Amino acid sequence: MAVGLKALSALHPVAGLRLGTTSAGIKKPGRRDLVVMEITPGASCAAVFTQNAFCAAPVILARKHFTQTAPRYLLINTGNANAGTGAQGLRDTEACCAALARLAGCTTSEVLPFSTGVIGEALPVEKIAQGLPDAFAKLSATGWEDAAHGIMTTDTVPKGISRQLTLHGHPVTITGIAKGSGMIRPDMATMLAFIATDADVAPDILQHCLNDAAKVSFNRITVDGDTSTNDACVLIATGTSRLPRITDSASAVYKTLASAITEICVELAQAIVRDGEGATKFITIEVSGGASEEECARVAYTIAHSPLVKTAFFASDPNWGRILAAVGRAGIADLDLERITLHLGEACIVRNGARAPDYTEAQGKQAMSADEIRVRVDLKRGVHSSTVWTCDFSYDYVRINAEYRS
Amino acid sequence: MAVGLKALSALHPVAGLRLGTTSAGIKKPGRRDLVVMEITPGASCAAVFTQNAFCAAPVILARKHFTQTAPRYLLINTGNANAGTGAQGLRDTEACCAALARLAGCTTSEVLPFSTGVIGEALPVEKIAQGLPDAFAKLSATGWEDAAHGIMTTDTVPKGISRQLTLHGHPVTITGIAKGSGMIRPDMATMLAFIATDADVAPDILQHCLNDAAKVSFNRITVDGDTSTNDACVLIATGTSRLPRITDSASAVYKTLASAITEICVELAQAIVRDGEGATKFITIEVSGGASEEECARVAYTIAHSPLVKTAFFASDPNWGRILAAVGRAGIADLDLERITLHLGEACIVRNGARAPDYTEAQGKQAMSADEIRVRVDLKRGVHSSTVWTCDFSYDYVRINAEYRS
Repeated sequence: MAVGLKALSALHPVAGLRLGTTSAGIKKPGRRDLVVMEITPGASCAAVFTQNAFCAAPVILARKHFTQTAPRYLLINTGNANAGTGAQGLRDTEACCAALARLAGCTTSEVLPFSTGVIGEALPVEKIAQGLPDAFAKLSATGWEDAAHGIMTTDTVPKGISRQLTLHGHPVTITGIAKGSGMIRPDMATMLAFIATDADVAPDILQHCLNDAAKVSFNRITVDGDTSTNDACVLIATGTSRLPRITDSASAVYKTLASAITEICVELAQAIVRDGEGATKFITIEVSGGASEEECARVAYTIAHSPLVKTAFFASDPNWGRILAAVGRAGIADLDLERITLHLGEACIVRNGARAPDYTEAQGKQAMSADEIRVRVDLKRGVHSSTVWTCDFSYDYVRINAEYRS
Repeated sequence: MAVGLKALSALHPVAGLRLGTTSAGIKKPGRRDLVVMEITPGASCAAVFTQNAFCAAPVILARKHFTQTAPRYLLINTGNANAGTGAQGLRDTEACCAALARLAGCTTSEVLPFSTGVIGEALPVEKIAQGLPDAFAKLSATGWEDAAHGIMTTDTVPKGISRQLTLHGHPVTITGIAKGSGMIRPDMATMLAFIATDADVAPDILQHCLNDAAKVSFNRITVDGDTSTNDACVLIATGTSRLPRITDSASAVYKTLASAITEICVELAQAIVRDGEGATKFITIEVSGGASEEECARVAYTIAHSPLVKTAFFASDPNWGRILAAVGRAGIADLDLERITLHLGEACIVRNGARAPDYTEAQGKQAMSADEIRVRVDLKRGVHSSTVWTCDFSYDYVRINAEYRS
């Protein structure tokens, strides 16, 4: 349903990065399902991966390759997650990397593999190997839109964002794409997301930038609380712009670039929630007044994961008691419920732990009838805050996950 | 839908306890919604309450009264939870206790109040006060079945269990009733449950017995992960049987009685899950081979709360990848996924972290097609285990919680 998502806007090329997409028939014939990204030599690359202990073979191999050498190629397939496939899964993902390495004339460890799709089925290595020459032949700096389609699974729309800014008089581009719709509760990582800039950034600084950006974007969204086995996010700095290399995370130029990259991560992360499985509402949960950022995030996630809260949002029902019940069970020690305030949109519903005297059901109904709803909880016990984005829980969520094997 | 629940069997009277039920018109006219229980003087009483920090006014007052004196009456209403009602809510619940105390000629603190229903609306004190004389007049040792109906909310069937056993040659009866269908993830407490025995048990021993029983029954079920604001469970020992007073929790007679009480708690807890909102499947999740009971429960709950797992159960889809993904994100340190085994019913699906070579999709389909499904995960890292009961996630769960304000 994709709440409030516009059509894909222009995705600007990032010099030093080329993308090629093809249909390898991995799950369904004719569907774009195989993407190759080529990174220019000398580029910096940062990555974060799922923290799910049950991680997929490509995540294990990508992590390993990433520590061995600077990546030259990313190889992404949809239609098969290559997770729960044991030793055979590792051999399969390595075989795919090797096939691309032979085409490209690089080493296998210079290829990072990414897979997404059904869990527990063997990766169709033959189909991927047969599709690779076409994807490789199509490598192009203008291949972003095609790639945004090529990494989709249950997504209903492709997700990509592009920004151009001027740093110290030099034009710099940042472009990113992402996929994800279900099994979304990233944990120190993301669903698949690939972001590139032509700025020149030292690798450690780039990793620092990605860690910080993921923390307030991909790591602050949830559709169903289920952390994927295959999450990964890669940030590439090709260094092809004329801007001098950034080596100091305290510099003003780093801060401007990092702020633009973070903005792109937040928009991509929100796009994943807006296109959450069955979503009809986009919900922002802001918890403030906490003793720590962690406890605010905990309260926000407890609200965001409550099936009772999510079904009430689907029904546009201002059932604020369910929200307060979620706050109460978040496990925050010594929470003083007498002080809490709760806003739905602009309406103050709860003040001092009970229904605000001036609140009317009509106000609540109006706030809940919008497609995009802001919930604000003030714990009134500190200065910290955290924001989490989520969507509602609809018949279509059940349908999508009960009728199809995803 | 009430998976596998039989009609209410005979609920034996427990001498020393009388129950009276009436329709006070609290939410809907003509519905049984007000229950009074009278406890004989000298009985022992144990209770556990919700750990939700946002607990309802009756929970706050019942806790207070419980520390002040031995309870003589329990006053239970449905149709209104009296939660999120602030200081007014406390005054209202106290007024109801006072009204019953006047009728009964006891003190207000000898009445424990319990409420369940919609959150955030003022308790209709007048209606309750007007209904009390009829409930009081109906007090009878045979009032259990009426009371089982009187405490229902979104439950589709009344829940009650009765056992008679002989201890040291004396007949002893245990009878219990419970309600609960949604907002079910008890935390050190239960939904509303009331259990009585005519055995004579010292109060501290009785509390010990209830704590132990709740831990493996009400505290091991979940419908939607939402801990209620109003959970409470009361265990009464009227002492009217001819069995001598039990004062030692190491005695054989205590162990026999406690085991019977625990069995009743487990059956009542399972009945709540079987009648979970929208439930079409009853699912037992057994996690063994853990380094501690706590980590086994954590893994079991992570599986039980996963919307992806629950929708797959609804679809009878043996989507075991979703179960493994839940195991992987349960946050267990140093979990060796290479050793894990997973059974669905009798079928071994995963061995050594990957699909068992001899597993066929037909086996999985068969296991999932049953109304009652057993999931067994062996972590192979210790000797501890834990069992959690849950239900699936269906269209009807969304309908019940989106279409009605509960």
